[in-house]
Amino acid sequence: MSAGYGTLTAIGLGPGDPELLTLKGLRLLRAARWLFAPVRAPEAPSYALEIAWPHLDLARQQVVALVYPMPRDGEPDEAQWRANARLIAAHLADGSDGAFLVEGDPLLYSSFTPTLFTLQDEFPSLPIRIVPGVSSIVAAAAQAHLPLARLDERIAIVPATSSRRALREALERYDTVVILKVARHFEALLDLLESLGRADNAILAERVGTPRERLERDLRALRGQALDYFSLVIVSGGWANG
Amino acid sequence: MSAGYGTLTAIGLGPGDPELLTLKGLRLLRAARWLFAPVRAPEAPSYALEIAWPHLDLARQQVVALVYPMPRDGEPDEAQWRANARLIAAHLADGSDGAFLVEGDPLLYSSFTPTLFTLQDEFPSLPIRIVPGVSSIVAAAAQAHLPLARLDERIAIVPATSSRRALREALERYDTVVILKVARHFEALLDLLESLGRADNAILAERVGTPRERLERDLRALRGQALDYFSLVIVSGGWANG
Repeated sequence: MSAGYGTLTAIGLGPGDPELLTLKGLRLLRAARWLFAPVRAPEAPSYALEIAWPHLDLARQQVVALVYPMPRDGEPDEAQWRANARLIAAHLADGSDGAFLVEGDPLLYSSFTPTLFTLQDEFPSLPIRIVPGVSSIVAAAAQAHLPLARLDERIAIVPATSSRRALREALERYDTVVILKVARHFEALLDLLESLGRADNAILAERVGTPRERLERDLRALRGQALDYFSLVIVSGGWANG
Repeated sequence: MSAGYGTLTAIGLGPGDPELLTLKGLRLLRAARWLFAPVRAPEAPSYALEIAWPHLDLARQQVVALVYPMPRDGEPDEAQWRANARLIAAHLADGSDGAFLVEGDPLLYSSFTPTLFTLQDEFPSLPIRIVPGVSSIVAAAAQAHLPLARLDERIAIVPATSSRRALREALERYDTVVILKVARHFEALLDLLESLGRADNAILAERVGTPRERLERDLRALRGQALDYFSLVIVSGGWANG
């Protein structure tokens, strides 16, 4: 008599402005019975839930927090991922549908990716759908009017935790370089940009489209300042001025 | 008595499915008097206009085609860009607003970027707003359930017209490599992927979310086939199977 699992839809909510959700994302967000919201720790706030908030109807939808701890030394917490996958499956077992809330895009540096594989491994009959979203990278570029690439240009996307060698090679070889999770790596990054002559055509962006948005075109002015975990730097090809 | 120029809003329409437009994009698309649609040649169809079509109200909105010829040997047609910028400015001179229609995202390999700079140079008082969109890259990954990056992984985005050396270096050094505009470069690319042992964890995608969508997980099966200009290949890090 089991109707089988309901569908889990991972929804890319966009970078922060609730109006940067897609029409498809909105439709499937509203159709979900369960709203799975990633958090860093129990009782911690969920940025994804904050973005989705204006679109929800909590009279008929219920939020389920999933804990994804901040990775330590890049070590994933696979036991926690399995626990999250089982919690999702338990809620969808009666055939009701769920939405996995993701800031930005679900497959670009999000908490959904490990869950995707854990679900596929442990619950292969659970249907999964993925709705892409506007990434914080294109949103920051749009806000700054800073092109990411034209014609045959090349782009590298590199977390600031990468080795200095990897960062240097990206900056030497690619027209545009996007550096993610800059926060406490900022001073070292700025030193590197200055040594390579690439500090001028760059921006730093935080939480674009939210009340906490910050957009800085003079990176040198940021020395000594505290930066958000979600800070990103875009180093442009500079051909605009060429 | 001049009210000044109306606002030009570049709207990222997403990869092809009209439902992957954002709420903000829809609102500003509907508010525009003039719809600037890029085409490759006079009378040629506009892919961007095709995506926007279901959302338009042509009783009060009017389409203006802008010709952006296919670049020859990477040489931009700056005279044509200036003509397009002047056409835009002429339509907005009475204070009415316009939307520049862009498939995907406006600052990622689009016809809008050259127009942005030409407008800023020649009509600095014309207000410009940019609404980011879902790129074909994240849409293809979503459709294929293929992660682009997690944690500290690095991504390279490289047009297939790049040198063999640049393609090889990207494939050797980056976890995920996205190769754009694959079409007639496909056989050479496949040879390179096979020689580097990276042909297995890759997909080819065309026109995701449209009736012409194509998604191929076995690149070798594509030898000898004609591919769309908008084809892209995503070579994944493969950690999903690791």
